[in-house]
Amino acid sequence: MTSDSSRLDSYLKEKRGAVESALDGFLPPENTAPETLHRAMRYSVFSGGKRLRPILAMASYELLGGAGPEIAAPACAAELVHTYSLIHDDLPVMDDDDLRRGRPTCHREFGDATAILAGDALLTLAFEVVASEARVDPASRSEIVRELALANGSLGMVGGQVADLEGEGIRPSVDAIEFIHIRKTAMPLRAAVRIGALAAGASGRPLDSLTAFGEKLGLAFQIADDVLDMTGTAEEMGKAVGKDRARGKMTYPAAVGLDGARVRTAALIGEAIEALVAFGDDAWALRGIADFVLKRRH
Amino acid sequence: MTSDSSRLDSYLKEKRGAVESALDGFLPPENTAPETLHRAMRYSVFSGGKRLRPILAMASYELLGGAGPEIAAPACAAELVHTYSLIHDDLPVMDDDDLRRGRPTCHREFGDATAILAGDALLTLAFEVVASEARVDPASRSEIVRELALANGSLGMVGGQVADLEGEGIRPSVDAIEFIHIRKTAMPLRAAVRIGALAAGASGRPLDSLTAFGEKLGLAFQIADDVLDMTGTAEEMGKAVGKDRARGKMTYPAAVGLDGARVRTAALIGEAIEALVAFGDDAWALRGIADFVLKRRH
Repeated sequence: MTSDSSRLDSYLKEKRGAVESALDGFLPPENTAPETLHRAMRYSVFSGGKRLRPILAMASYELLGGAGPEIAAPACAAELVHTYSLIHDDLPVMDDDDLRRGRPTCHREFGDATAILAGDALLTLAFEVVASEARVDPASRSEIVRELALANGSLGMVGGQVADLEGEGIRPSVDAIEFIHIRKTAMPLRAAVRIGALAAGASGRPLDSLTAFGEKLGLAFQIADDVLDMTGTAEEMGKAVGKDRARGKMTYPAAVGLDGARVRTAALIGEAIEALVAFGDDAWALRGIADFVLKRRH
Repeated sequence: MTSDSSRLDSYLKEKRGAVESALDGFLPPENTAPETLHRAMRYSVFSGGKRLRPILAMASYELLGGAGPEIAAPACAAELVHTYSLIHDDLPVMDDDDLRRGRPTCHREFGDATAILAGDALLTLAFEVVASEARVDPASRSEIVRELALANGSLGMVGGQVADLEGEGIRPSVDAIEFIHIRKTAMPLRAAVRIGALAAGASGRPLDSLTAFGEKLGLAFQIADDVLDMTGTAEEMGKAVGKDRARGKMTYPAAVGLDGARVRTAALIGEAIEALVAFGDDAWALRGIADFVLKRRH
């Protein structure tokens, strides 16, 4: 292990700890009525996720000089939105997944109705958490709410999910895949990076650079995910694999083959890292995360 | 028709027109990709609703001296949240309703997956619309986002919906019914009144009075709704009636009988109107709306 990767490991571990603890504070306790709902929300939020989105928000906040604990609220909001999207995606009428991170999906554990409502409540909580963080100035809070909403609404993540479902069984084209990937993965991931920057009061060129970084990273992340669905094992991934092909999903490897997909992932990660060049060494954590996305096995 | 009720009719008609037109501007056009999603969102939003929530927001805004067109954003946000909640409530795994306002429900028209996602997108859009209204000062925007989220999350509307589903087939008690009614109906309706006041920069006693008004009105509204489910016709209501009893729903009339429920509605409306007393004649529109809730037939 090089010292760089050891430094990144410590960084990720420390941030993950901060995220877990902040999420615990934002979610109502399990014994709050209605208990089933709060159990379901916590079950899905605390299921061993990588916390990539909140860590990206924190890293971009720090890169732009932010130092206060108030970043936890916008960062965790991105994770709450992500968790809601997974719960709804896994539903029988959507991707119909039984397993997520090695455990039964929310609807398998709590039933479809509670899963839908737990997702609804997590999405709502994300906005509450941002709006309630009095240490972030009100103008930044509004910008963060707007960013999260735009990235995850009908022109962003939800639109991507609809296109993804509608694309099943249709011959894949790179254009159609990029339509889905931009909305479903790149916009939410880009938003995570941007809300960190917005919380630090960024605008102009630094914000533009981080926006480009987040978008390239998000596109790479989704292609890598599609590759892992074809090459990973269920044990490594904590969920069923090979499902994209079985459902006729429109994936990048389905359109250009595994090798083409791997080449594209590496190129996008290269572009993401290039977008950070003006930040110099200070961007080491974001660069490390980009490298992690390229090399991840699960 | 008295001149008072004619004045209210004109007022409601004018506000309804403003709401329809503002909603049209906030929703992406039908030909925006993915088209199915935007068609489903518009189908449910433009289905002839009374627009009670946005009109309440506008009326309380004006009562506190607000006069600008910027109230349309917070007001419509309340309606977008309301529409999302109806789409999800109507789903087969929730209340399983085929008809809403005289037309097929969203999932009957577009399928369950699109209906869930249209609801998700409308909820997300509500927060985007508030956060994007630059004419409302940023601190008020944050307060409005927070208010909407708190009223409609796991401690508000979504929590009430879970309790409502869990209460099916259980012997009704007034305590359990009030738990559901406060969260499922009173908190969102109170929020609609409050966001109008917050947009006008209100705090202290005027805000407290309007909060009390909104809460009493919301409780009365839900009991009146339960009564209409037992006494109205499907034609009047634009949806199936008698469903609460068929599903063993925990309703106020089921606990205390129709007469008891009617007496309670009238008492709550009385308390709501009493909460407005300090505003004098200026509160005529809110008083008129309270009266409308008491007497409505659909």
